[in-house]
Amino acid sequence: MSANTFGKIFSVTTFGESHGTAMGCIIDGCPPNLEINSKDIQAELDRRKPGQSDVTTQRKEEDAVEILSGVFEGKTLGTPIGMIIYNKDQQSKDYSNIKDVFRPNHADITYQAKYGHRDYRGGGRASARETVNWVAAGAIAKKILQKEGISVNGFVSEIGKIKADNINHKETGNKYFFCDGSKLPDLDSMFKDLIEEGNSVGAKLGIVIENCPVGLGDPVFEKLDANLAKAIMTINAVKSVSIGNADDLLGLKGSEARDEITSSGYSSNNSGGILGGISNGDDISLSFIIKPTSSIKTKGKTVNKKGEDVDIEVTGRHDPCVGIRAVPIAEAMVSLVLVDHLLLNRALCAGIEQKLPFSE
Amino acid sequence: MSANTFGKIFSVTTFGESHGTAMGCIIDGCPPNLEINSKDIQAELDRRKPGQSDVTTQRKEEDAVEILSGVFEGKTLGTPIGMIIYNKDQQSKDYSNIKDVFRPNHADITYQAKYGHRDYRGGGRASARETVNWVAAGAIAKKILQKEGISVNGFVSEIGKIKADNINHKETGNKYFFCDGSKLPDLDSMFKDLIEEGNSVGAKLGIVIENCPVGLGDPVFEKLDANLAKAIMTINAVKSVSIGNADDLLGLKGSEARDEITSSGYSSNNSGGILGGISNGDDISLSFIIKPTSSIKTKGKTVNKKGEDVDIEVTGRHDPCVGIRAVPIAEAMVSLVLVDHLLLNRALCAGIEQKLPFSE
Amino acid sequence: MSANTFGKIFSVTTFGESHGTAMGCIIDGCPPNLEINSKDIQAELDRRKPGQSDVTTQRKEEDAVEILSGVFEGKTLGTPIGMIIYNKDQQSKDYSNIKDVFRPNHADITYQAKYGHRDYRGGGRASARETVNWVAAGAIAKKILQKEGISVNGFVSEIGKIKADNINHKETGNKYFFCDGSKLPDLDSMFKDLIEEGNSVGAKLGIVIENCPVGLGDPVFEKLDANLAKAIMTINAVKSVSIGNADDLLGLKGSEARDEITSSGYSSNNSGGILGGISNGDDISLSFIIKPTSSIKTKGKTVNKKGEDVDIEVTGRHDPCVGIRAVPIAEAMVSLVLVDHLLLNRALCAGIEQKLPFSE
Amino acid sequence: MSANTFGKIFSVTTFGESHGTAMGCIIDGCPPNLEINSKDIQAELDRRKPGQSDVTTQRKEEDAVEILSGVFEGKTLGTPIGMIIYNKDQQSKDYSNIKDVFRPNHADITYQAKYGHRDYRGGGRASARETVNWVAAGAIAKKILQKEGISVNGFVSEIGKIKADNINHKETGNKYFFCDGSKLPDLDSMFKDLIEEGNSVGAKLGIVIENCPVGLGDPVFEKLDANLAKAIMTINAVKSVSIGNADDLLGLKGSEARDEITSSGYSSNNSGGILGGISNGDDISLSFIIKPTSSIKTKGKTVNKKGEDVDIEVTGRHDPCVGIRAVPIAEAMVSLVLVDHLLLNRALCAGIEQKLPFSE
Repeated sequence: MSANTFGKIFSVTTFGESHGTAMGCIIDGCPPNLEINSKDIQAELDRRKPGQSDVTTQRKEEDAVEILSGVFEGKTLGTPIGMIIYNKDQQSKDYSNIKDVFRPNHADITYQAKYGHRDYRGGGRASARETVNWVAAGAIAKKILQKEGISVNGFVSEIGKIKADNINHKETGNKYFFCDGSKLPDLDSMFKDLIEEGNSVGAKLGIVIENCPVGLGDPVFEKLDANLAKAIMTINAVKSVSIGNADDLLGLKGSEARDEITSSGYSSNNSGGILGGISNGDDISLSFIIKPTSSIKTKGKTVNKKGEDVDIEVTGRHDPCVGIRAVPIAEAMVSLVLVDHLLLNRALCAGIEQKLPFSE
Repeated sequence: MSANTFGKIFSVTTFGESHGTAMGCIIDGCPPNLEINSKDIQAELDRRKPGQSDVTTQRKEEDAVEILSGVFEGKTLGTPIGMIIYNKDQQSKDYSNIKDVFRPNHADITYQAKYGHRDYRGGGRASARETVNWVAAGAIAKKILQKEGISVNGFVSEIGKIKADNINHKETGNKYFFCDGSKLPDLDSMFKDLIEEGNSVGAKLGIVIENCPVGLGDPVFEKLDANLAKAIMTINAVKSVSIGNADDLLGLKGSEARDEITSSGYSSNNSGGILGGISNGDDISLSFIIKPTSSIKTKGKTVNKKGEDVDIEVTGRHDPCVGIRAVPIAEAMVSLVLVDHLLLNRALCAGIEQKLPFSE
Repeated sequence: MSANTFGKIFSVTTFGESHGTAMGCIIDGCPPNLEINSKDIQAELDRRKPGQSDVTTQRKEEDAVEILSGVFEGKTLGTPIGMIIYNKDQQSKDYSNIKDVFRPNHADITYQAKYGHRDYRGGGRASARETVNWVAAGAIAKKILQKEGISVNGFVSEIGKIKADNINHKETGNKYFFCDGSKLPDLDSMFKDLIEEGNSVGAKLGIVIENCPVGLGDPVFEKLDANLAKAIMTINAVKSVSIGNADDLLGLKGSEARDEITSSGYSSNNSGGILGGISNGDDISLSFIIKPTSSIKTKGKTVNKKGEDVDIEVTGRHDPCVGIRAVPIAEAMVSLVLVDHLLLNRALCAGIEQKLPFSE
Repeated sequence: MSANTFGKIFSVTTFGESHGTAMGCIIDGCPPNLEINSKDIQAELDRRKPGQSDVTTQRKEEDAVEILSGVFEGKTLGTPIGMIIYNKDQQSKDYSNIKDVFRPNHADITYQAKYGHRDYRGGGRASARETVNWVAAGAIAKKILQKEGISVNGFVSEIGKIKADNINHKETGNKYFFCDGSKLPDLDSMFKDLIEEGNSVGAKLGIVIENCPVGLGDPVFEKLDANLAKAIMTINAVKSVSIGNADDLLGLKGSEARDEITSSGYSSNNSGGILGGISNGDDISLSFIIKPTSSIKTKGKTVNKKGEDVDIEVTGRHDPCVGIRAVPIAEAMVSLVLVDHLLLNRALCAGIEQKLPFSE
């Protein structure tokens, strides 16, 4: 029931405020004898790390992770894995401008109203800094998936009004994780303008899961797609999530949209690799939309604690498109979901062959 | 961890196969002293019931619910509420045509692969018949919400290529739950064609939650929007879910999309009433897309258990647009999520005033 | 979090008041392809059934169980198993004498205070009638254990002041489940007196689990012994539970109490087969004490709803020693715990050989 | 489902191996606006700390706790509270003597068999060092209970064959937490002998909860007594747990054992303050037995990894009676259970007066 625990069998419990002492997490339910070292985790954290390009926040965090337990002589023990990432660059700056003022479209106002008390420094618990925990946990999940041959790859397909002409999730080795390299000059130019203007745009991202075995997912209330949707919607600023080819569905008839099956496999994949909440052995694909960040320098209207009208300009280190940094975060969340279902499937369906009737 | 339990504090656990003996559920965590009788529940079931118009399945189920426990002298006891709905119209027909054949884009193939055994009659557990349990449980959740003055209303905004000109969720007292009455003749005509053709279309639906108090939702892994997304994606055939004004986000800059705040309230509601995973006191809005059902009479390709290519025609009682019947189902799922967060909020934030800084 | 769900992976959720319409439960997380029929379950229910001897309550219930879902063509589907047992012999008698009066040492007073509303008929939800659900669920758990060769056997070792001379859990085929047949005449005589007197006595019971594999139990908060203790203490009227040879521990030194190990196995079993919360491969033994029932005809003092002093005599059908009927109930609860840990162990430790270093 | 999480609403998740880098925990579900500082927690840790008297282990740990999150400006935020306690005195000593040998009656053999890998240094995760986390979490739980006026006090009533003549839980301000000060000379003498001998004895302890409101506990599977039993049995080396006056129950008849009620309250308290799994407003009392530790210098028999017979002498820093240090640990576990039920009761029974019919 802990609202800060994600996952049922392979679970991660997290803590940390953006400008508190440290971020950290405990991973429970990790199978023993998995080879792990902090470098595996650091590599994923470095993909997420701010300050890497000129369009991501300039906060300079080492994000150095330390494993505190659960790993001995290079292998997991089956006991909980404690990890900690100290906050280094908290900048003991003056927060008086946001202490009593609610930034529009931020969680300031809801945390204050719900809890009657909040850490206003850098967004506190509501900050995307929390995602450092998810990426650390996801790195361990990815190790488990790798052993099964399953890969999880994210990419950006749209930033503001710039759209990839072809979705090619293999082509993401660039600074924006954009899956259509030919658009890089357009993006550079757009970002130059946004930074100048102190403004931001939204983005659309995708995830492809390859080599996922048939049989993951537990109907009716732990469906794989439902849990993926929750995982993705958990990411800060995400407002929409789709499985498979959702956008076109209103234009298609049932006879066109259904994925027929032949003796050599599925003829199409509108379903996005999930049927009845269970993986069908095909690639799993999902997409999601991230809103333009509201942490912008453009002046806006809001109220203070007393309910008085005031103007606000959010200064500080912010990204013109937070969507970019969401790629490793989304991969992490998706990996956590997959591992959880993988382990639950072992519990309930041990000894069942779980194969498809056609030649794969 | 039970995959057939939904909700943490106010929870519903369900059972039932489409053509088994009965559907049923147990609601646990319902506060005592709530006035309930089976008519309240029956009324919601009747909204969902098939066979009401010529475009919904002709299966004739009474869907008569019986309360077996947890209610005494007209009021809840605080003990679990058991409910049962016997399956009456199972039609002991011949299933040999689908027993060994996997209907394309159905859960037949995934259930068989995962479990090595399946109830092939009418889709078994994967059938939308299961949603009768959700609607029954949701009816009780709605009673709790009503006491708090919270309303949950669903509607259909698009069916196939026919789109509501204006979204008006009050106008849904028609056979399609379509929120733009002027489109009814177009819809009638489209459905006539679809039935003739033995085909189907998808739909887009919306939910509006009015009078939701600020403070519901539990970051970071039990965010209100994340749980709503999971609840909606749990509904059979749903492929996409959005919170607030998601569709336009790629065209807007941060300065346009952020919902500014004034001393008389929020200036706009792109966020859909949720900030940082917590309700912000504004209306909560969400939308979702349902695929065209694959249970259609048009002949298609598939394989049988042996992996051989075969043709299939899904006969039987099916809807040309399953989206229509999803309205009460989605309302139920949303209501379950809200009540769960309402109760958790009582547990953790008792004694906090939880109000907004501006005049509402 | 549902307070009426027991078990994490293999879980049972129950409902029912003693004199309501029906008792029932949903078992979720049962592996597919397990052969089950209602006779297996009925056999366990019959062992628990009242009215079998002259010292157990004369309530005449058929306790006929019906499986409503989750089993198809004789085998489990991997979907939830719904079961129902209608209450037949509720006796629409006059409850006015206990409606407003709190029977001493019963849950009447606590249910009323906690919930502000209660079903006073026969104890409502607090009645041991609820255990019919546990036995039904336990019967399925036992089927899973049988496949693994694990047996769970309960017995009574003390009733009031009459104690078994030798504990022999194989000798329980008698009406009192008493594990020392030579004491039967003494027991008969004692019960004759108790019935005459309208009084009751307590009992001590034991459970032996044989052939339990090493490796069940999940430290640190899901230890096998901790979960067994919870399961046993959940049974109505149980006040004490011990694992292994607990009674003698205060008289032994560490050098005497530790179970030494040799190349042919453990030298003794004071630990009761569990070390560090994990089964050690030896027999698991536990014992527990049940209080004398307070449902007796002897007049006693209590208060009514207004807080006024009144006398009470609990008439109706009651057992002079409720401990006797607890044997199948305790076996059921223990079986539920074992299966849950068995499945969790499959999830987390798949592929590990899990054997002891010595020849077993 | 995390096996390293305790509690449903107020939950603590822990990590740490005895000789790893650190111990730590995350408390989730702590209400906001609770005043907390690390001194409150340190005070409880100091009560548990080893090295305080000559009969507790000489391991010298500062056990300095650091709060990493969840507390801001001296008050809880409603977000997770991360705490860490670094292991300082791990002694990088030579473990080769126990690396491949299983100490009798320890978890060495079960961890190795279950996980196929273990941290053999000082017992790893199975060490009672883990309880430092429980005490830290329990200190926060106690703060919540104090606000409600509820107190939780533990004591030792028997050590080996030395028994308190009168149980007086107020008199525990001595080095053994023994509740009968007149027995201190006997105890000193016994411990002198045990240390010389390199041996150990067991102990019996008690807990009294005063001023507990009526209404805590959630039947049927989250009964207050069942959860207390689980909490106590979770403590290392505990083998037996009883609620109320369990020991005498076999000698009493129902007419003697039932706690009659009068207009001025309960006449006796054999039930230990719990009826039907719900607190009845009277003092809650429980007792438990701890085995003599098997970590003793007396030579014993065991096997090594290869299954060969070997002799073992457990050297190192160990207590002749681990029961003594269990007092603050048990208080912590009991406090965690109470707070969890307190919060759940707020969720489900808000607005119900919850009072007893008689004058208290």
